[in-house]
Amino acid sequence: LVVSVVGLGLMGGSFALALKKVNPQYRITGYDSNREHIEVAVELGIIDSAIDFTACTNADVLILAVPVESCVSILASLAPINPNITIIDLGSTKEKISSACPVGLRKNLVAAHPMTGTEYSGPKAASANLYRDKTVVLCDLEKSGEEQVATAKKLFLQLDMNIVEMSSNVHDLHAAFISHLPHLISFSIANTVLGQEDTKNILMLAAGGFKDMSRLAKSSPAMWRDIFIQNRQNLLECIGFFKEELEKFEIAIDSSDETALSKLMESANGLHNIFK
Amino acid sequence: LVVSVVGLGLMGGSFALALKKVNPQYRITGYDSNREHIEVAVELGIIDSAIDFTACTNADVLILAVPVESCVSILASLAPINPNITIIDLGSTKEKISSACPVGLRKNLVAAHPMTGTEYSGPKAASANLYRDKTVVLCDLEKSGEEQVATAKKLFLQLDMNIVEMSSNVHDLHAAFISHLPHLISFSIANTVLGQEDTKNILMLAAGGFKDMSRLAKSSPAMWRDIFIQNRQNLLECIGFFKEELEKFEIAIDSSDETALSKLMESANGLHNIFK
Repeated sequence: LVVSVVGLGLMGGSFALALKKVNPQYRITGYDSNREHIEVAVELGIIDSAIDFTACTNADVLILAVPVESCVSILASLAPINPNITIIDLGSTKEKISSACPVGLRKNLVAAHPMTGTEYSGPKAASANLYRDKTVVLCDLEKSGEEQVATAKKLFLQLDMNIVEMSSNVHDLHAAFISHLPHLISFSIANTVLGQEDTKNILMLAAGGFKDMSRLAKSSPAMWRDIFIQNRQNLLECIGFFKEELEKFEIAIDSSDETALSKLMESANGLHNIFK
Repeated sequence: LVVSVVGLGLMGGSFALALKKVNPQYRITGYDSNREHIEVAVELGIIDSAIDFTACTNADVLILAVPVESCVSILASLAPINPNITIIDLGSTKEKISSACPVGLRKNLVAAHPMTGTEYSGPKAASANLYRDKTVVLCDLEKSGEEQVATAKKLFLQLDMNIVEMSSNVHDLHAAFISHLPHLISFSIANTVLGQEDTKNILMLAAGGFKDMSRLAKSSPAMWRDIFIQNRQNLLECIGFFKEELEKFEIAIDSSDETALSKLMESANGLHNIFK
């Protein structure tokens, strides 16, 4: 099996490393628009060889691990193509990619979102274990070819992933709550502290809580800009819900309402009855 | 040295375990208003023996590790007292405790905030290593007796802590940004997801980011209710700043403004240049 990975950052690089680990027979080729990433990927043995972008369609499997707007434009630009190729995109939003994919290519595409990552980016952040035991969401599978779905599932199962299937629009709403909103909030917490005169003295008091809450604020602006814009509608809705919850606390604090505060926190505690 | 610990939960229990570990000669007695906590603390060897509340003032050092409103009322109720006793309170807010302490006791009190903790509570959550290598803020030391300050510093240094000194009002503002606001946000994130019809399906997609952002939502309502109310003014100010930052994202997303989004995230990325 020849697998070409376009985008050799955290997600693509880790995918290449993981595939090679489970089956050293796979031949992994790779491309990145950033020449330095290609060099690092070759040096670190993430890919067997570097290829030109135009050669990526010769593979059996093409992995697109690029910011989601680039994913849309790459799909629009691919031609001519190996007609049996399986294209798997790993983007964090799925609706636009699934619907904007050219009709002639749509059966080749399997729209996937692996629910994993770290706050780091680039090929040096890649790890062979990033995908293990994690969930991957496959969207709109009725639009993909049977053979392509089988190939994609085989690969994700080889990486020890749990497969969940749903429509791309449900995925995008759920992902807004569970991933995109938390990122947005983490960026905002970081900016809140950075906006104070006394930032350094404030940070001197930081412990585990603040570390966790600001970790995602390290994430790549290029990647998240595209996600926020593609998932604009859902995200605005989520921000609205979140602001309502925050304002319940604000009102209870403003009026020193012990009962209301206790209720709000007891409710929040309940999350961990259904989420371990 | 006889050390009495009032409040045998995460903070008090861990303090007792840590002291015993560095100096097995210390005699540690303890009291908790929850009888079950006393039993667990004795069973787990967290304290050498249980005492009545009225006996806690016979110690050389009295540790108050209770919710911050209880701390205020305990200080108001202590009498008669060993005149050389060192009282160390471990509360997360310092201004009210420092100023509400009865005048006759004020030199005995060292107002401390160890910047450590976990999302768990109760004596079973106690750990001898909770304080190691963490920062402890000592407030308004000019109001404490020299002997008491020396005793408190000696204990914190024995626990391998880093000591920082500041006024209680500066502490409370900084703590609002670095600890109280992040807790409030984590509770609000949990309630946002819990408020959806599809909570379970949304949580099925949760990965490391959501786990981190919702971890603090497990924290104790009894403890945090008091903190939020005592630090009301600072916290309301912090919420205001945070909402402004969140709204900058909201506006940029609403208008699909790539440049503004990139700028906001690049700014947030900068946190980690000054905070490792």
